Amino acid sequence: MLDSPQSVDELQEIRARIDAGLERFLPSPDRVPESLCRAMRYSLFPGGKRLRPLLTMAASRTLGGKESLAIPAACAIEMIHSYSLVHDDLPAMDNDDLRRGRPTSHRKFGEALAILSGDALLSLAFQILARHPEGESNGPLRLRVLQVIADAASAEGIIAGQVMDMETEGQPFTEQKLVEIHRHKTGVLINASVVSGAMAAGADETALGHIRAYGEAIGLAFQIVDDLLDVEGTTETLGKSTGKDARAAKATFPALLGLEASRRRAGRLVERARQAIRHLSPGTTLLDDIAGSILKRTH
Amino acid sequence: MLDSPQSVDELQEIRARIDAGLERFLPSPDRVPESLCRAMRYSLFPGGKRLRPLLTMAASRTLGGKESLAIPAACAIEMIHSYSLVHDDLPAMDNDDLRRGRPTSHRKFGEALAILSGDALLSLAFQILARHPEGESNGPLRLRVLQVIADAASAEGIIAGQVMDMETEGQPFTEQKLVEIHRHKTGVLINASVVSGAMAAGADETALGHIRAYGEAIGLAFQIVDDLLDVEGTTETLGKSTGKDARAAKATFPALLGLEASRRRAGRLVERARQAIRHLSPGTTLLDDIAGSILKRTH
Repeated sequence: MLDSPQSVDELQEIRARIDAGLERFLPSPDRVPESLCRAMRYSLFPGGKRLRPLLTMAASRTLGGKESLAIPAACAIEMIHSYSLVHDDLPAMDNDDLRRGRPTSHRKFGEALAILSGDALLSLAFQILARHPEGESNGPLRLRVLQVIADAASAEGIIAGQVMDMETEGQPFTEQKLVEIHRHKTGVLINASVVSGAMAAGADETALGHIRAYGEAIGLAFQIVDDLLDVEGTTETLGKSTGKDARAAKATFPALLGLEASRRRAGRLVERARQAIRHLSPGTTLLDDIAGSILKRTH
Repeated sequence: MLDSPQSVDELQEIRARIDAGLERFLPSPDRVPESLCRAMRYSLFPGGKRLRPLLTMAASRTLGGKESLAIPAACAIEMIHSYSLVHDDLPAMDNDDLRRGRPTSHRKFGEALAILSGDALLSLAFQILARHPEGESNGPLRLRVLQVIADAASAEGIIAGQVMDMETEGQPFTEQKLVEIHRHKTGVLINASVVSGAMAAGADETALGHIRAYGEAIGLAFQIVDDLLDVEGTTETLGKSTGKDARAAKATFPALLGLEASRRRAGRLVERARQAIRHLSPGTTLLDDIAGSILKRTH
């Protein structure tokens, strides 16, 4: 995903820690029905780009935070992202057969277990956030992060996005409406990722403001590139079916502006994201590198 | 539901406060797609027995707690209960057409919106618990209650119960297995109801122990009576279809022990629940009355 060898190493190292965290936070198999346990793991491992938890960890590092304070938020957000994919893939919604190059959860385990394992991942996210990072002194941080993440997961957040996305199918739409859909569907959780990481690092309001501006810009850029890949990518590289948006007459930037203008828009947003964090004194260039990598995504 | 006129009045008053709380905690309609908003409200109002939030409020009153500290937990639990009904009713699961005398959510709004409104109610529960009761001094209480309720909602709680329930259909089962299913399916959330109410009242470990024993006993008693009503009740009084358990060959007490022995078992459990709270100095007899009323349920 990233170019500079140093970033690649750093990123691999963080990804391994995120995976270890996800593993550690999963409930003990003897406390959960085996089928449910398997369905939950199936959606988490091997995982996709891990963009959201990487952003949480990157924001924390940028502001000199301690990794152990950011890992719970990173893992909880990845669980929420995974649950939302499982539910959005269901026959009653996007009806997708393929995700990350494998059968979607409901194709593999049946609809009932797919729905319930999604519910379980969402609940698990809040179990984690209610207890981690441990210690009485971290209580106020846990509550702040809980608020940010619960809001992003809510009817005012990603669920609104999915509803708007479905309801706009085949309908005329304005650019304003499109930005609103994307902001809810993808933007709020990406924003919660960087904000919770920054909170874990004890960011003040000024730093949080920069981080939010960064999150907002790359959230939209990410979704535009996602839409471009649905037009230009292949099932092989993406691990999911392509051309769906056009078939479903979804509201997308390529449909509104065309490919070239959409690409330029994504480029400007990435530039804006980079500008937003220019004045932070970063302990790492990761946030900048991740922003740049979004334009180079092939999956 | 209750006999003594005083309890009936007290109960009606508490129910009205719970309804007002649910109303207050719902997101502002201008921040949520209208269809999603309607589907969320549909599952909450007019509502059923409100057993769980009543238990939260009753436990809090019993221990002399302040109502405002218990209302958030009561409302969050009712939202979690409502979401679980919406998802369990889905075609892929219990495939029910009728709930509380009305079409189930997916019959009314379609499957996609039913799934998403369930997700939204679950998320909303955690939004509430992360912020209420307000004030920095209530932070530790919020976190304790969050842990209890998140655990009850989790793959180790009601979701495990639903999976076990589905997987035992048509299979032979022991009494031990049956108790395990019921404990997860209904018991854990009923227990979380009384425990969170007690916590809101600042209960010490001894009082919490009594409250837990009460919750465990009435949780199982409630589910046994539920199973009895599925055999003996009518769709008219219950507001949902009956005879489903036998048709689906579900694991139930009537199927295992017969009607008479199941009724006796429920009676003994209610007696045990009453004994468990005998040594608390109650500010009200509500918990005792609710326990007694469980045997007299007709819906």
